[in-house]
Amino acid sequence: MTMPLSRRHFLQAAGAGAAVWVPAPVKGYSGAEMSAFAAQAGPALSSLGVSVRDLDTPALVVDLDALDANLATMQRTMERNGIGSRPHAKTHKCPAIARRQLETGSVGICVAKVSEAEALFEHGIDRLLMTTSNVTPFKIRRAMHLRKWCPAFVQATDTAANARDLSEAAEAAGVVADVVVDVDPGGHRTGITPGEPALALAQLVDRLPGLRLRGILCYDGGSQHVTGFEARQAQTLDRLAAAADTCERMVRSGLSTEIFSGGGTGTYNIDHQTPGFTDVQVGSYVFMDAQYLGIGGADDPEVYRDFQPALTILTTVLNAQYEGRATTDAGAKACTINRPWSIVKGEQGMSYTSGSDEFGSIRYGDDASRTYAVGDKLELIVSHCDPVVNLYDRMYAVRGGIVEAVWEIAARGRST
Amino acid sequence: MTMPLSRRHFLQAAGAGAAVWVPAPVKGYSGAEMSAFAAQAGPALSSLGVSVRDLDTPALVVDLDALDANLATMQRTMERNGIGSRPHAKTHKCPAIARRQLETGSVGICVAKVSEAEALFEHGIDRLLMTTSNVTPFKIRRAMHLRKWCPAFVQATDTAANARDLSEAAEAAGVVADVVVDVDPGGHRTGITPGEPALALAQLVDRLPGLRLRGILCYDGGSQHVTGFEARQAQTLDRLAAAADTCERMVRSGLSTEIFSGGGTGTYNIDHQTPGFTDVQVGSYVFMDAQYLGIGGADDPEVYRDFQPALTILTTVLNAQYEGRATTDAGAKACTINRPWSIVKGEQGMSYTSGSDEFGSIRYGDDASRTYAVGDKLELIVSHCDPVVNLYDRMYAVRGGIVEAVWEIAARGRST
Repeated sequence: MTMPLSRRHFLQAAGAGAAVWVPAPVKGYSGAEMSAFAAQAGPALSSLGVSVRDLDTPALVVDLDALDANLATMQRTMERNGIGSRPHAKTHKCPAIARRQLETGSVGICVAKVSEAEALFEHGIDRLLMTTSNVTPFKIRRAMHLRKWCPAFVQATDTAANARDLSEAAEAAGVVADVVVDVDPGGHRTGITPGEPALALAQLVDRLPGLRLRGILCYDGGSQHVTGFEARQAQTLDRLAAAADTCERMVRSGLSTEIFSGGGTGTYNIDHQTPGFTDVQVGSYVFMDAQYLGIGGADDPEVYRDFQPALTILTTVLNAQYEGRATTDAGAKACTINRPWSIVKGEQGMSYTSGSDEFGSIRYGDDASRTYAVGDKLELIVSHCDPVVNLYDRMYAVRGGIVEAVWEIAARGRST
Repeated sequence: MTMPLSRRHFLQAAGAGAAVWVPAPVKGYSGAEMSAFAAQAGPALSSLGVSVRDLDTPALVVDLDALDANLATMQRTMERNGIGSRPHAKTHKCPAIARRQLETGSVGICVAKVSEAEALFEHGIDRLLMTTSNVTPFKIRRAMHLRKWCPAFVQATDTAANARDLSEAAEAAGVVADVVVDVDPGGHRTGITPGEPALALAQLVDRLPGLRLRGILCYDGGSQHVTGFEARQAQTLDRLAAAADTCERMVRSGLSTEIFSGGGTGTYNIDHQTPGFTDVQVGSYVFMDAQYLGIGGADDPEVYRDFQPALTILTTVLNAQYEGRATTDAGAKACTINRPWSIVKGEQGMSYTSGSDEFGSIRYGDDASRTYAVGDKLELIVSHCDPVVNLYDRMYAVRGGIVEAVWEIAARGRST
């Protein structure tokens, strides 16, 4: 089956095509071509005038005006409320965005996996808090290796046995590892029970020779998407009360509570009301998505308008020959199957589904603002940003419809 | 934020660690390490005796005995029924598996996207049939570039305008491009209406100077997961009847019907009953998954036993301190959120959900065959193989629990 000669020629020809800027009559640029242009042009990329509509699809696009507005809103709110933001990189997996978050005032960056931490550190992001415990000897060894080169790396633990394993590994690696105790808000997913168990674990961490206690985590994922601001506020304050009490007992015991981190995009303007709370692990606010748009905000019970939808999927219509519908090239592999489905940006009276792996489906209502022809491109507001980003190798940073940068999603697929 | 010195040292140390085989007391191998071992060891990898349980998690694992059995079952059935298989690479995105399929008798390989075709051709797979139409000038140009180096590349079309665009592009590229007409089985997703419209398009393709007509496609995705063999058989034969009639009219008009391709894993032992049908575009049969297990087979109305579950996700328990449940490291980013949920392999009385992006959740019933401790590893039979594979860069090919090869998922993320 192998055709070595043809294959080599094919690769050479394709490579040559990608390396040379040819403003051909047929516009259209692949991801590899755009990355090559970006590497050559740097900040001058926007002067090349590549329109978002010239990108090959499906493509992941981030609007820089919306992104910057979201960063500014977060920082303004944090300053007003006297806490910090420690954005979660599991949302964007992108060093360029983490850097922007730190530059606009975030106190650090959270990561979910040690491989994610490694990818960010390799790209110069060093104030890292890993919110998941490392439990296997292999992952603990990796975490300590990272800690050796990245003194600002903090990791979580939620059992005494794990804390002892971490301490031993830290000593073996010749470091003192910074640790926070992960406290369960009641979802019983990760974390230790607040109160006496959490306090005892904090005391153990404080005593162990290889560890340095830095405080606690309490991430209440179950409260982030509660619909209605008042209901969301009531639930999250209630569920964080036990962690706040634990934090208070740690203070009285002379233990470090320098970090009391939790919350997210749904509770970013609520969490400062929890006593002792220091920073919110916001993720989705940079991009927003259809899931968060529907939860309602403090000012609008219907739509959560605090942040602007910044992340879209560019897709192309493949088939338009059947009444009332059109088929696109962005299905589950480009959009996920999260609900609510993606939203066609800027249009009315049409629904989008991505239940098929390869194809998206548009259905028009009677009030559809337009219909599409084969080859037309449209943008979708993503359903749930985190798993969507994890499908792409790069995102296009766009301002006013012109590509300003190509951002590598360096931690894409880093689930280990 | 950048720490160039630390960063360089970190990378060097990490790189050195990956390149040297150190049978440390703490076993455990990352994906990068396993790829490096495989590149060094080649076919001798299995002699190193790396157990599947030593792999870092989440990891995608394919059992070679089950995979080979599935390939053999398919080939045996094809030979008995007098048609061919043209397996769809959108399922596995893996050149090593495509090669195995061709070596065991498949007549060619299907792809869904031109970028997928490119990835496979770069790895030596050349008998490629692209089942989706290329509609943008950019993608058409890429397809013709591929056709130039890969004479066995066949592509689909479903409108007269697109056929003319393909012909013009083929002439510009100096090739005659092989084309099949995509016929709609009634789902109105892609394809042209069978009968007169499809016949007219086939005649146009046959006339256009840049194209060579090779036949038709009719993929009836909606019939693949119909529960119950008889119901599935009745539906797919009914929905392919119009395409079969079109094929018959093409024969009478002297047009090529060398290819009449369609069907899938759910109908692989039914499609030969459609007159003129030449080959099934089976995908999932190589791996099987929870979705297909539930549709029932000709011999067993409850479970589809024709093929063996070969694809699993290896995951590690992170938290086991709450009654009746455990939390793992394989959530939606490792398993997708397709239903039915993944199945814990070899166990009874427990359910697995991956609704959370980062974490999987096990719930034990009263009849649970066991419970797990922190650090335990378990295997999950995947929910829906295609989008799961698309999350991973590599899969581990395992026989008897020992890793025999590390297979690159070269077309992972190739959705363009």
